Amino acid sequence: MTDFVRIVEVGPRDGLQNEKQAVSTADKISLVDRLSATGLRSIEATSFVSPRWVPQLADAAEVFAGITRRSGVSYPVLVPNEQGYERALAAGVEEVAVFTAASETFNRTNTNAGIDESLARFEPILRRAGADGIRVRGYVSTVLGCPYQGEVPVADVVRVARALHAMGCYEISLGDTIGVGTPRKARQMLEAVAGEVPMEALAVHFHDTYGQAIANIAACLEAGVRVVDSAVSGAGGCPYAKGASGNVASEDVVYLLRGLGLESGVDLEQLAGIGRWLAALLGRPTGSRTGKALENA
Amino acid sequence: MTDFVRIVEVGPRDGLQNEKQAVSTADKISLVDRLSATGLRSIEATSFVSPRWVPQLADAAEVFAGITRRSGVSYPVLVPNEQGYERALAAGVEEVAVFTAASETFNRTNTNAGIDESLARFEPILRRAGADGIRVRGYVSTVLGCPYQGEVPVADVVRVARALHAMGCYEISLGDTIGVGTPRKARQMLEAVAGEVPMEALAVHFHDTYGQAIANIAACLEAGVRVVDSAVSGAGGCPYAKGASGNVASEDVVYLLRGLGLESGVDLEQLAGIGRWLAALLGRPTGSRTGKALENA
Repeated sequence: MTDFVRIVEVGPRDGLQNEKQAVSTADKISLVDRLSATGLRSIEATSFVSPRWVPQLADAAEVFAGITRRSGVSYPVLVPNEQGYERALAAGVEEVAVFTAASETFNRTNTNAGIDESLARFEPILRRAGADGIRVRGYVSTVLGCPYQGEVPVADVVRVARALHAMGCYEISLGDTIGVGTPRKARQMLEAVAGEVPMEALAVHFHDTYGQAIANIAACLEAGVRVVDSAVSGAGGCPYAKGASGNVASEDVVYLLRGLGLESGVDLEQLAGIGRWLAALLGRPTGSRTGKALENA
Repeated sequence: MTDFVRIVEVGPRDGLQNEKQAVSTADKISLVDRLSATGLRSIEATSFVSPRWVPQLADAAEVFAGITRRSGVSYPVLVPNEQGYERALAAGVEEVAVFTAASETFNRTNTNAGIDESLARFEPILRRAGADGIRVRGYVSTVLGCPYQGEVPVADVVRVARALHAMGCYEISLGDTIGVGTPRKARQMLEAVAGEVPMEALAVHFHDTYGQAIANIAACLEAGVRVVDSAVSGAGGCPYAKGASGNVASEDVVYLLRGLGLESGVDLEQLAGIGRWLAALLGRPTGSRTGKALENA
């Protein structure tokens, strides 16, 4: 087990996607560029979903064209289908991410397709990506609970993660979309998936809805995961719990890693400054406790 | 190891003590009475420190006289010295708490006394309490870091905890006063103390300054601790980091315990309601993420 933990910064995509306050294209570009200077290795830059679904990210192509890509940093973008893949490819991306839920009900409600249909839609994307030299990351959402069906059997998470991996996704991010997980269940879920997909190909993605995200990450790091998704300033909310906290804050994750003697390569003070800048832009206090603590330090 | 975890609700004392917004005596009484109805077994009701030090709690005797003590619930109060003990005794308390730091510098700065002097001052209190039939809880602060000296050697924490226990404190609460701890260090510290003081006589007390409190509690529960201090709505701030988060929120702790299959006997929804009521009283959003999530659920 290595001591290096790669943080996948999802603030510019998963964070902003769930923020009501409109952010200008220039500010989105500035956000990605600032993050690029902190030592982060992966920054999810935007999403090529239909602007009708996510108006906040309608300027995906402009954002991607505007950012300064730094060598050694990946800039994945979300794509929901082949049209999204084509737009992303035209924009010059080198990595895309596809997503499906582990909960059948959630997937049907959110994408109008069953899980198997979603997986089938990804096959041509994965095939083309292979030919185009594009890396593909896979997201599995609702891995610890679903707003519609409640419990999600671990076997369903394992099945979907295995399918995405078998299809060619180099990494599968396991997402607790509604933030209901607690450490023991999070670890058990991760270990079940790791029985079928190598741990090196897994990432964890927690939302802090119930304040459990850092504890869940700590438990999963102990189980061996070495890739963690998070969003600077804890950007994003929860569409299923109005007013709730969003993604786990990257600053708090970096603080945790530091305390555990794990290396992320990220400059915490610089990151916290970006978090406060973003929070001001969004017109709300930072969602990072570390960010708050460092503000007046 | 039992599945029951006793929460020591410290909102009315440690929480309010660090809140700037003045709270009326009637509201303090109401806070304790509401908490008494949730299933909590221990509620730290107030502090008999000098009103010059903590003006917010100058009405300690009135608060204690006003609350309705429920059978099966303990209502400890903080006492800094023998005069405080006498005032508390006159008010009719059945349990008191004494406090010292593990950091010599912190103790000198905050109480004008070295640790050994503090311990010596507690001896007559413990003696009298024994004769008076009063239970005594001991707090050790700065167990994972000090705002003045930085690192605090684990051996110092062990020494102070052992001394308080040997003196007759039935329970020792290990406090990360400035919230700098992370799970592995928290667990190592707890286990070191448990080598000298029985685990059954230990409690953990975390502040969420850097967002690590729930993770630290989870790690300490895994190591066997079964008493956790917390404050409804995450009341309190941090005098050493302006604007930072306060005590770990009781709501988030109860949510964690539920997820881990541990029993606290506390009604989460009722507790979350009290947290929102208190936050409104303090003129700020609740510091509990679970409280926020449940608000619109």
